[in-house]
Amino acid sequence: MSGSVLAVDIGGTKFAVALVGSEAGGEGEVLRTRRTATPPGGDAQTLWRTLDSLIDALLTEPAEVVGVGVGCGGPMNWPEGEVSPINMPGWRDFPLRARLAERFPGVPVHVHNDAVCLAVAEHWRGAGRGSANMLGMVVSTGVGGGLVLDGRLINGGSGNAGHVGHVVVEPGGPVCGCGARGCLEAVARGPALAAWALGRGWQPGAAVREAPGQGEAVPYVEAATASGRQLALDAAAGDRLALAAMERAGRALGLAVAAAVNLCDLDLVTVGGGLSQAGRLLFDPLEAALGEHTRMGFARRARVVPAALGQDAGLVGAAALILAASHYWPR
Amino acid sequence: MSGSVLAVDIGGTKFAVALVGSEAGGEGEVLRTRRTATPPGGDAQTLWRTLDSLIDALLTEPAEVVGVGVGCGGPMNWPEGEVSPINMPGWRDFPLRARLAERFPGVPVHVHNDAVCLAVAEHWRGAGRGSANMLGMVVSTGVGGGLVLDGRLINGGSGNAGHVGHVVVEPGGPVCGCGARGCLEAVARGPALAAWALGRGWQPGAAVREAPGQGEAVPYVEAATASGRQLALDAAAGDRLALAAMERAGRALGLAVAAAVNLCDLDLVTVGGGLSQAGRLLFDPLEAALGEHTRMGFARRARVVPAALGQDAGLVGAAALILAASHYWPR
Repeated sequence: MSGSVLAVDIGGTKFAVALVGSEAGGEGEVLRTRRTATPPGGDAQTLWRTLDSLIDALLTEPAEVVGVGVGCGGPMNWPEGEVSPINMPGWRDFPLRARLAERFPGVPVHVHNDAVCLAVAEHWRGAGRGSANMLGMVVSTGVGGGLVLDGRLINGGSGNAGHVGHVVVEPGGPVCGCGARGCLEAVARGPALAAWALGRGWQPGAAVREAPGQGEAVPYVEAATASGRQLALDAAAGDRLALAAMERAGRALGLAVAAAVNLCDLDLVTVGGGLSQAGRLLFDPLEAALGEHTRMGFARRARVVPAALGQDAGLVGAAALILAASHYWPR
Repeated sequence: MSGSVLAVDIGGTKFAVALVGSEAGGEGEVLRTRRTATPPGGDAQTLWRTLDSLIDALLTEPAEVVGVGVGCGGPMNWPEGEVSPINMPGWRDFPLRARLAERFPGVPVHVHNDAVCLAVAEHWRGAGRGSANMLGMVVSTGVGGGLVLDGRLINGGSGNAGHVGHVVVEPGGPVCGCGARGCLEAVARGPALAAWALGRGWQPGAAVREAPGQGEAVPYVEAATASGRQLALDAAAGDRLALAAMERAGRALGLAVAAAVNLCDLDLVTVGGGLSQAGRLLFDPLEAALGEHTRMGFARRARVVPAALGQDAGLVGAAALILAASHYWPR
């Protein structure tokens, strides 16, 4: 395949587009990128015009687009690509695939869940390379994922396979955004974890301000917000409640990962997203809980590693829906 | 394909072999069957001779065997087919596939986990026909299963995909045979459930003896054993503790099934095995717990149905490893 693939990454905070090389050798290389903020509260047409203009800005130099791969926040009708991203009320059953197909006639246009694209990216070019059976997870304001089994992306009956955030880890536990109780996402998503710590007296940023070598000498400290990211920073600075929150998240993740490992006979789990920045403080309790709940011989081999790709991951995964369709798109 | 497939079903209580038709039209029809008890405490050679003789007894009339499909209790090295069935200590890393390949040279010999074969059978010829995304479960002295996703049997990295019995449904709960705590199998397998009820004062068979229309008039009642099957009978007769045990099992099954539905985007779950004989008394709490924990649109469509095939299911699934290898055996 010569020419380039147009990769599109649609999120609640930003839109990103890229040209990705399709030549052997440079296949999967991100050649050129454009980003813009998602118009807050934009209606369907405003959102589409924003994307359309962003693509114009990317394609100022001539380029032969041989296919379009798209990652978009869910839910969506799949594979039709009619999207209703939970954080973008302006698009409800918006025919994103059809609109892109009008703009790029005669080439394949593949739309998938953004968390699935991140998993695909890790499998194709990141920490999951060489694994035939992996779960790629994102732990951020939500908890999502994508499954690759027997070397192929698993879509499930409606393109929704990989929803590991809704494995129950605490029966009778906190209510999740989905309406159920005790889902992994209800326990381990950043905002839930921050609320849990605040409810126990966590003072965001206090541990960082009081850390040795700073204290009184620090003339100005930016106001800390009660976020998952701040929780990770405070845990690193030794805050007792922030550490307890990481333990809580890690154990919840370990239970859900164990379910996936036992059910799907996985080799590997990659974990990305904001909370994974906490490093060992999160991965240690995760691995402990996983080890306690994967006791059969086959399940013990599964490893958990941080995701390897940075902010381009969503674009790389979207491009793979075209460039490596034999693995990541239904035959 | 003309000729017949030799199907073999190796379990801790019985060995079964069958010739299964491979002609279009009769494909999958069980033509002839032989069964024998598993020699208790048999060593490797005794077990092999028992199987070998059983095959002799099946093949007294001439038959062209075009392939051999085998379901065997796990664990095993897969796809090598070196088996170590947990209930047959005489076979440890026994080269079952290789020995059958010596006896039937030049034809494919495929060995898989017995629970996987039951799931394959339900998908191929039973309650799962037409579903592209299903989990086939067995709830008996153990809890096992097999996964079909995107229309193909999922093997996982070591042929162990489908181990739904080791999804955690009760964190910190009872210790499982695998060594972990709170696995579905530790809660819902027949013997665990019977022990749970006995510990609360269950008197096996009492409810059946006292049921209206029987009482004093019954001259002889066979001694009831504290089994999962008896528990199901007593629940049907209205025994309070037996009903509570079915509720406990059903809810545990519902949580694990919800995990599989959310993670794998399933259409269908089939449930077979002794405990499934309890019918609505088991399926009602199962469906209630499943409904509580599958709240996203895509997950609500999943249905749970009883397995449809009887005692030949294991043989039918074993035959499918050959007759429908394009769906049930790796390319």
